[in-house]
Order: sequence, then structure tokens, then C-alpha cells
Amino acid sequence: MNTFGHHLRLTTFGESHGPAIGGILDGMPSRIRISVEAVQERLDRRRPGNAKGTSARRETDKIRILSGLSFDGLTLGSPIGFIIENNDARPGDYERYADKFRPNHADFTYQAKYGIREAAGGGRASARETANWVAAGALAGHLTDLCGVCVQAWISGVGPWKAEDLYSGECDPDRIQAVIAEAGERGDSVGGLVSCRISGVPAGLGDPVFGKLHSRLAAAMMSINAAKSFEYGLGRKASEAYGSEMADIFVPDACRPGRIGTLTNFSGGIQGGISNGNDICLAVAFKPTPTIMMPQATVDIHGQECMLQPAGRHDVCVALRAVPVVEAMATLVIADALIASQAQSHTLWR
Amino acid sequence: MNTFGHHLRLTTFGESHGPAIGGILDGMPSRIRISVEAVQERLDRRRPGNAKGTSARRETDKIRILSGLSFDGLTLGSPIGFIIENNDARPGDYERYADKFRPNHADFTYQAKYGIREAAGGGRASARETANWVAAGALAGHLTDLCGVCVQAWISGVGPWKAEDLYSGECDPDRIQAVIAEAGERGDSVGGLVSCRISGVPAGLGDPVFGKLHSRLAAAMMSINAAKSFEYGLGRKASEAYGSEMADIFVPDACRPGRIGTLTNFSGGIQGGISNGNDICLAVAFKPTPTIMMPQATVDIHGQECMLQPAGRHDVCVALRAVPVVEAMATLVIADALIASQAQSHTLWR
Amino acid sequence: MNTFGHHLRLTTFGESHGPAIGGILDGMPSRIRISVEAVQERLDRRRPGNAKGTSARRETDKIRILSGLSFDGLTLGSPIGFIIENNDARPGDYERYADKFRPNHADFTYQAKYGIREAAGGGRASARETANWVAAGALAGHLTDLCGVCVQAWISGVGPWKAEDLYSGECDPDRIQAVIAEAGERGDSVGGLVSCRISGVPAGLGDPVFGKLHSRLAAAMMSINAAKSFEYGLGRKASEAYGSEMADIFVPDACRPGRIGTLTNFSGGIQGGISNGNDICLAVAFKPTPTIMMPQATVDIHGQECMLQPAGRHDVCVALRAVPVVEAMATLVIADALIASQAQSHTLWR
Amino acid sequence: MNTFGHHLRLTTFGESHGPAIGGILDGMPSRIRISVEAVQERLDRRRPGNAKGTSARRETDKIRILSGLSFDGLTLGSPIGFIIENNDARPGDYERYADKFRPNHADFTYQAKYGIREAAGGGRASARETANWVAAGALAGHLTDLCGVCVQAWISGVGPWKAEDLYSGECDPDRIQAVIAEAGERGDSVGGLVSCRISGVPAGLGDPVFGKLHSRLAAAMMSINAAKSFEYGLGRKASEAYGSEMADIFVPDACRPGRIGTLTNFSGGIQGGISNGNDICLAVAFKPTPTIMMPQATVDIHGQECMLQPAGRHDVCVALRAVPVVEAMATLVIADALIASQAQSHTLWR
Repeated sequence: MNTFGHHLRLTTFGESHGPAIGGILDGMPSRIRISVEAVQERLDRRRPGNAKGTSARRETDKIRILSGLSFDGLTLGSPIGFIIENNDARPGDYERYADKFRPNHADFTYQAKYGIREAAGGGRASARETANWVAAGALAGHLTDLCGVCVQAWISGVGPWKAEDLYSGECDPDRIQAVIAEAGERGDSVGGLVSCRISGVPAGLGDPVFGKLHSRLAAAMMSINAAKSFEYGLGRKASEAYGSEMADIFVPDACRPGRIGTLTNFSGGIQGGISNGNDICLAVAFKPTPTIMMPQATVDIHGQECMLQPAGRHDVCVALRAVPVVEAMATLVIADALIASQAQSHTLWR
Repeated sequence: MNTFGHHLRLTTFGESHGPAIGGILDGMPSRIRISVEAVQERLDRRRPGNAKGTSARRETDKIRILSGLSFDGLTLGSPIGFIIENNDARPGDYERYADKFRPNHADFTYQAKYGIREAAGGGRASARETANWVAAGALAGHLTDLCGVCVQAWISGVGPWKAEDLYSGECDPDRIQAVIAEAGERGDSVGGLVSCRISGVPAGLGDPVFGKLHSRLAAAMMSINAAKSFEYGLGRKASEAYGSEMADIFVPDACRPGRIGTLTNFSGGIQGGISNGNDICLAVAFKPTPTIMMPQATVDIHGQECMLQPAGRHDVCVALRAVPVVEAMATLVIADALIASQAQSHTLWR
Repeated sequence: MNTFGHHLRLTTFGESHGPAIGGILDGMPSRIRISVEAVQERLDRRRPGNAKGTSARRETDKIRILSGLSFDGLTLGSPIGFIIENNDARPGDYERYADKFRPNHADFTYQAKYGIREAAGGGRASARETANWVAAGALAGHLTDLCGVCVQAWISGVGPWKAEDLYSGECDPDRIQAVIAEAGERGDSVGGLVSCRISGVPAGLGDPVFGKLHSRLAAAMMSINAAKSFEYGLGRKASEAYGSEMADIFVPDACRPGRIGTLTNFSGGIQGGISNGNDICLAVAFKPTPTIMMPQATVDIHGQECMLQPAGRHDVCVALRAVPVVEAMATLVIADALIASQAQSHTLWR
Repeated sequence: MNTFGHHLRLTTFGESHGPAIGGILDGMPSRIRISVEAVQERLDRRRPGNAKGTSARRETDKIRILSGLSFDGLTLGSPIGFIIENNDARPGDYERYADKFRPNHADFTYQAKYGIREAAGGGRASARETANWVAAGALAGHLTDLCGVCVQAWISGVGPWKAEDLYSGECDPDRIQAVIAEAGERGDSVGGLVSCRISGVPAGLGDPVFGKLHSRLAAAMMSINAAKSFEYGLGRKASEAYGSEMADIFVPDACRPGRIGTLTNFSGGIQGGISNGNDICLAVAFKPTPTIMMPQATVDIHGQECMLQPAGRHDVCVALRAVPVVEAMATLVIADALIASQAQSHTLWR
């Protein structure tokens, strides 16, 4: 339940306002040189308080790697254990929520499932957990880098604004900030769309029939807090298309003699669940932050109607901070698939 | 790779034009009465040739259950093995494809991954495999039935037509058939959208953080051939929403005193990855069948450009036949989660 | 529960007196040439009725492979599904047991676990299941063969007789048959010891800390019906040894310049859970067949004392028929580890 | 590879002389009251330096639990993360080993597998890792305690001395200390045998066919450093027995009307892989500590012959410190099986 991946496995722990969060990344091949600074940079990028529209919580998010690396920074092949201390935890901020169920939060469902819950910051349900994923993704990124894979995500929509082409890289920072600022000033929150392009992926990654590469990517993306949809390639529009319009015609690859390419990429880089060498293109929709700075009606744990006066420190648009998380999860999926592809490689057993 | 589920696990095998397909459903609790007729009915519903716009292949799809049931039809707790013979396999139909890569098919990627492939009918990549899933879903359905869960899917969009509200159950058979007939007459294919509603799910199913119920559903749905997007609740529109508009306000449940409900269901029945007792609502977009009855340019396995003259027996709109498959996969996910919820139930260990 | 292995996974089904048993072997690399005849030969070797002291049940044990192979016998990389029909099932033979718990059998525990059981032949608990394992081991053997691995098991003890050196290959067929014949004539059964030597294993197989190669072998061997102990290398005697006596001193390998060998093999080919290139040597003790041809006291399902008049067709010494099963399970473990070692190979990621 | 268990999963990390070791215990049901003091006591019992014949390394082994518990000590149902700092790490002690392969250690095999290794204290191969297991076992013990299960292990043999009956609890501390002292004075090490009795286990735990309870126990025990054999019930002697001698005759349970017991317990509490309600009895043989205080011949990493002058701090008899580790692993297996038995319980789905 708290483990992700098959060959490269991330297992995590941590509540939002507990002493620390952390994880174990198991399955990294040995002798890969790791830059702890590069991992820290990724964490800094995800950190709250770095941009307008993100939570005012101030965490240094310093990672402490406890195992798995040699004294000179090479992976040993053993699991990489790491922790990130919670420095700016303020469980007191959440006392007012302890006996009320916040709408669109996990308060009610955790109580239903476990019969107990950490009210402070959502406990295990908090997006603080994604710091673990970013750390693990940054570690795994050293492996995908070696293979020439590049993962890049960006905001392709927020509130009323949306890029014409989700995968062109089109982004409009001014418009995005304007939408978020407007919502924030009203005490409101707003949803967003994150696109991601994975380039340099060799053909042949992914496993039929339940391990399709896009199925793994979907599971990864839908693990991210507030994610409501996943699509790749033509995506949602596929339902409106005709087969004659969206065929990715195979052609000899002009740049790489003897290899095969396609004229278009409606497939989003994956056919039959297996990568075809084209860029993998996907998009994830995130709902608005459930906590807004407006009074909301709800019920308490005794089933009585009551009002909720929100407080705490919250993002206006969680999609903003989801960008590095999308990249991290995509990196973990691709790294896992790269390792898997070695195991079953048909060129090894002759 | 060919196993789905955690507590209730389906492992399958079979190529489209091999001697048989089949599977093993492991983890079904004992002493559940199984109706083999009910399983067969589900298979009949999925079967090709039952409706306009579906493939002309004629398979009886008779299931043969080989283990796991007592002589009087009760589950023994042991794995349920089953096979479905391929009666109408015609590998010869596909000889013309043996050395050409069909656009938008898995031909090229399977060759890249395995260095070998079954040209006939796509081999393992064929949607014939989904007969296994429908059989397993029908078996698992006996367990979800016991728990009062009801799973229902329908076509909510095809080509230019789309239901106003994806989850209302709105369906327009005449319009749907018209769109498909028009495409089929032109030798073209068309995409479609399948909506699914799961009702009767108790609150508390699903596991943080990588076993979120919608993450499992997404992986399940994206395993289905031709699926391009997954969404639940507000779905893709979440990116355009404001937090103040889409809060599912908690209220005392009018019908069930002492219990809690919500005024709306933007969350789609899942909050924080755990079911909240509302109907789970999801939608999946399917691309048009890649094989069309028009000549297409492509390359052969030697990298030479060539033309493809399609033949074989194909659906015009795969979404049509995906409906029972969506139901089957949803049923498997929910049954798995129901079993899991027993294992960790907080009321058992006092 | 009914799946074994990690990269190479066997999932099985089948009751002793149901219509058929079978399995799915998933994870075999593609393009390995399979001899179905070689698989059948292995099954023939395990088959009951082939030797004195084994059950009189007559099964042809013909395997039917349903998927995963190309028309010319190459693995496709897709799961290999197979079934073995039960031709000589005689559930009627077991009617007398239907309401009695046979001592040392799984009757009572299956009833306790499942609240239902197949009385005929032990149902799922029957050693008939091991035919599936032998079939899968024979398939996996094509991969270990490619890697130069040789797996050989033999009887190293039965009743009062035991080989001086468990791993020398010493076997005394006359003595073994005499012990078994004597027990059989009395209507009794007798235990036995099976030794196994795995040669040609490259150094570096196995995974710390919970995937130690001998831990995987132990789990595999203890899965075999009637197994009561597992040991490797010095084994049980290790508890009596002094460290100065049992050190495997490293020396330059005389035959292979530049490589390292050891003077002795007390370690049994595994150090720290990882193979060191020496022969892997292990031994498994099997209890006598629980069913004997003598009346036995027991209780029935109502808790009433009663007598049991045995019938059915049973082995006198199950260890005899365990020999090919030990080989099959060892082969599955080594094949799995060979595939795993490719995935994490430190020479691939530079 | 570094994860143990199915429903209750322990994932660990840590090198012997790195900054810290630790783990994540995932799957503990919620609302179980945990005594951190009880966990610490277990760790203290395993700690080196507590008895003659154990290593002189001085570690405080203070556990720091970072998540998964409420402020008042109840499990939250979320993963329990913990770390144990390495305070007395002295990597310098091992410099002399850096370029030599110690006999019977994992130096050579880790180098073969990973192409790199931590020379200090064996790195990941060190028994220091077992502190993680003891911590996790102590946490899991709170669940087995609730179910009335009691796990107890003891030394039943060391060097020339062995208990007549491995499961009677017979122990001879004076003799044991004498054997160890004599070996230690000579700079030698000595093997030992650890017996374990698990009482209070309900009938019905364990899963056919690859999840047999004794198969899980075997895998668990063979994971412990220096373990060379596993047996349960009659164990190794089963190979010498006749079926008529070792039948556990069922009888009405005198103490618990309506329930069934057995006259003897040759089966060791498990039949057909499933517990029958009797005490589970098992024994594990441990080899002598490989490091001895005598010069040993070996080769270096360049394949040159050389002498090894041992140093560092080592146990004379690792079996001594294995006692709480055997208990911890047994507890983890039983706790896992208890949770599993809830998931598939045949009384829940009516």
C-alpha cells in the first residue's frame, strides 16, 4: 500500500505533522554516481513557500540519506534509506479541525477506514508525502539520465485558461499567475492541468497485459494528491476521433537510417502498452485545493451540522506544486521499466 | 505482468489465434455459491458478432472451469482455473500482415520488445484477452453482489456525440448506431466514451498512498485495449474549477440516521483515495479501432515503405465491446478492495 | 498464495480429482526454443505407477500447452498456459473419508481454514499439484540449460539408511528398494531424504536480505508436500562445528586463471545469500506418506471418535517421487535468480 | 529484496557502519496500542555486548519511531517508520579487509554481484540489520499478543552439546557458556542450534500451495545471518521414520468440548501448510561466526594469495544473539498470517 514500483521500489512513511517523513528506494543498480546536491535541488523546487499561490509553511526539506551509497557517492546496490525532518510542523493549527470533517478532504474517509486519524495537516493524506516521491524520483533520475531519458512537466491549464496543444510546451506564466492571484484574493482555490513529456525513451518498455506502460503511468499520476484525470496521446479527444484521422503512419526514420519512425504521435509514444520510441506525452488534471479561506458548512464527528472557519497554510492551486511531483513519478515509472526491460531482454539468452 | 490484483489476483494467458485463452482467479473466499450460467451470460454479452459495428469473428466463448468449485458450485478457497477455446481462429487471415507493421497496432512495439511476435490477430495484444477478464469479473461479481455492490457501464459518447452529464446514465442508442454505421460504411472506425457507476460501495475501501482506489481503477481501465484517458468525479473539468464551487458539503444522511452523506458528488465517491460511500463515477475514452478498411501506408519489417490492404474481422467502434470489460475490471478492483478491507479492519483486533 | 517466483512466476490451479490441473508460467524471456517432448519426459518421470513404492493411480499426464509459444516452438515472451487433464480421477474412492479427518493429512486444517473441503484425494492439498511444478520446471530448464546450469537430485536416505556424505551423489538403489518393499509389505510407509546439487551457477545470484538464494530455495523446497526440513552446505551439522574447521579458504582458481575458487564447499555454494560459483548443495527430508494400509483411530467432522480403514492408491515413500519435484523447484528458483541478476546487473548502467 | 511479508510488510535499509539503519513496517491494523518501551526492551535484549561470547561493539540501539503512531501511542494504520542510529561505527577497524576476501563472509559474493562493496563490517551483509527485524517483530508482537500467540526461542544446542528433545525447552546455560568460553579462548567460534515454540496459534493459518506456513517460516529463518538449516515438527528425523510411528491421532479435545486435538505433535503444529492449533515447533542451525581470531589464508581482490590477520569485534557464537531474531521473524510471519486469515475468512462473506 505504501510501496510503489516493481523492480525499483519506493516505500514511504510519514505524517504531515509528525517528527519526520522518509522512504526506502530499493532496487537501484549498483555503481551509479549520485549527486546528493541534485536530489536536494529537486526537493527545493517542490518546497512550499517558493512561489505565490503556494502554502506559507516553511520547511527546509533537507534530505538525510542514511544508507545505500559508498563514501564517494556510488550506489552500493543496497536500499537507499532517507528521511526529511518536519521542522515547521504546527499541529496546533489544526485543533479546530479535530472534530470536524473538512469537505473534499480525506478526514471522513480515513475515519471510516481506520477508526482513528491524525487531524493535523491531514496526517498521512497530506501532500507533504510527495516530498518523499520527489526525493526518490531525483535518485531514480540518475539512472534515467544515464539512459538519455528526459522528463519535463509544466502547467498547461489553470481555471479558464488552457493551452491549445497540451503537449507543445505552451505555457503562459503571466496568465497563470493572474488566475491564481485572482482566486487567492477571493479566498478561493483553483484547479489546473499539468502536461508531461518524456523523451529519449527506447522502444520496448512496458509489459502486456496488466503492466502496460500507460497503465503504470496512470496509476502513478492518480496517486498524486488531487489528481482527477489521466490521459496520454490523443487522450480524452480519442473518443471523438475517426480511425482514418489518427493513424500514426510508420515511415523510415530520416535521421537514423535503418530505424523506423512515425509521421505523427497521436499514440503518445505508447502502442499496445509498450513504448515505440516517440516522446511519451501525458496530462493530468488537478482539482482546486479543497481548503479555501471561506466559511464552509459541514458536520462534526458526532454527525452534527456545524461551520468550518478555515485556517492553516494552504496552496491556492495545488497543480503548481504538482509539476515536480508529476516528473518524479514519471521518472520512477520509466526507471522501473528500464530495469525490467533488462531482465526480460531477448538479446541476453542466446 | 500478466497478473492483476493483490488479494484477489487474476493471472491470464492466451494469444488471439492460439488454441485457447484462459486464466486463474486466486484469492476468492470459500463457500461462495457460483453460477456458471451467470458467468457464461457475461461472456455472451462481450462476444463478437452480437451487434452491428462489432467484429464478424464467431466464437462460442464457452468457459470451462477446471478447479476451485465444489461439485455443488461452492468456492473451495482454491484457485479457479478456466479456459476458453479459440474455435474460430483463422491465423491465415493475417499472413499479409506478417512482415508489415500495422499503424497504431502493437506490431512494431512487440517486435521491438520481444524480437518475435505472433502476427495473427495481434497475438497477446489482441482484445480477445478481455474475454478472460470478463469471465474473472463475473466470478468476482458473486462476491460484490453479496456485499450489495452494483457496477454498471454504458456508452456516454461516440464520435461527435457526447452525453451532457457523463454520469447521469444518459445514452442515445439511435444516435450511437448512426455514428457507427456511418463510419463503418466509409470503412472507417470511430472512438467512444464509456461511463461507469459503482453503487453500494461501503465507505473505507482503498489504501493510501499508492493503493488509492481511483489509482487502482485507473490502472485497471488503462489496461483495456484502446483506452486513452481515465477520469473520475469532476474528472478533466477539475482543472477548470474553483474550490468554492466544487465542495461536497457533508450533511447528516436523511435516509440513514446517524450516518453522514454529501450534498453533491464532485468527488466521484472517493476522497483521499478511499471510498466515502457515494457512487463511484468514472469515464474512459477509447480510441477508434486502429484497423480500418482503407489502404494505409506503412513500412515492413525490413524498414521499406509499403502499402497495407486491410482485411480480417474488426470492430468499427471498440468502445461498444469495452462496456462489459469496464464493468469486469471495476468489479475486480472493488472485490479486491473489499477483501483487503477485511484484512486491515480496525474492528477486528481489539 | 498459488503463485511462486518473482521475475519468473508460476501460478497454478487444480484439485486432485477435478477435471484438470494446470498453470501459467509468466516471465520467460522470448526466443528460447522449447522442446515440448522434453517437458513431457520430465512429467513422465514424475508420473505415478512408474516404480515400486509409488501410487497405483494411472495418469497419462499429457501436457497441453495453450499459449506462449510460436508455431515453431520459440517462446513469445507471453505467458505459457498449460493444462494436464485428470484421466484417472476416482472421487468415489474417497467417499469413506468424506466425514473423517485422516491423521497427518490436511483434511482438518483445510476444513478449519475454508469451512469446506474436497475430500477426494486431498483436493488442492494433493501431491498431484506437483505435476504442474514439474512441467513449469521443465520449461524453465530450457533457460537454465542455456546458462550452463545443471540440477540433479537423488535419494540420499530412506528409513534407517543414509548416505555418509549427503552431497557425494552416493545412492544405494537396492538398499532403498529393500527398505521401501519391507515397509510396503507391512502396509506401512517410510520417510526419505533427497539431496540436490546445482552446478554451473554463476557467482552473484541471490538478493540480500530477504531474497537470499538459500531462503528462496528453502521456501521452494518446503512447499513440496511432506517436506519437514531443509539444509544447505554444512546444514544441520553446522550447529556442532567450530569456525576454524569449516572455513572455505579462497584460492586462485587453478583451472580458470584470474578467477577465485575455494578449497572446500562447507558453504554449499552460497555466502551471504549470494552464489559464489561453487556447486549449490542442499538436502530435504520428507516424512512417510501419511496414509498407511492399517486401521487408524481418528475423529469425524462431528468430533466423534471413529476408525479409519484406508483405501485409495498411495505411495509408500513420497520421497521417491519428490526427486523430480525437488529438481523442478530448484530450477525455478535458479531461473528466477538468473533473470533477476540481469535486471540489476552492475555492468549495464554505465 | 529488502521487503519481507505480504499483508504486514517490513522494508529495511542500512549498512553496518553507515549513519543509521531502519525500516518501515506497513500493514499494521489501526488502533493497536503500542508500547515503545516494550520495543526498546526487545532491542536491548539483542544488543551486542550484553553477554559473554558476543561482540564488544557498544551500540545503544535506541529506536526512534517517526510515524504511524498517534500522540497517545495508537497505531494509525499508516506505515511505522523507524531508525536506529549507528553510534559505535568504526569503519577504520575494517581497513585491513578492504582489499581481501574474508573466508565464509559475503565479501566475495557481494563484489561479484554488485561490483562494489562496503568493506566495513560487511556493510549490508552484517547481522546489524537484524536489529531492524527485532524492532519490527516487537511492533508486530503487539498484534500477536492481542491474539493470544506466544513465541519463545532458546538455545537447544551448541558445539558438541544438544538437547535430547529439541522442543521440550531443555536448555543448559552452564554447558553452553562453557563451550563458548572454551572456543573463545582459543580464538575460535562455534555453531549453535535455536529452537522455537509458537503457542496459541489458531487453526487455519497459512496458505496452500506456495504460502504454506512452514514455507514462510523457513524463508524467514533462512534469512537470518549464518542459518544453515530449518526443520519443524519431526524435522530431519522424518526421513528415518515409518508412517505407523508418527501419526498424530485426532481425538476430541478434553479441555475444550466440541473441539478436536491430537495425541502427539509430530506434525509440529502444521498440516498441509496450515496450522492445526497445536504448538508450532521449529529449529534452526547456525554456523560458527566466520571471523575467528586466528590468521587465515585467503586471496585479495587482485586474486593474489595473502594472509588475513583478523580484528574487529565479533561474536564467538552467533546463535546466542540469533535467539531474539528467531522470535522476531516468527512473530512477523504469524502476524502476517493472522491478518491474511481475516481477508479470506469464510465466515465473512455470507
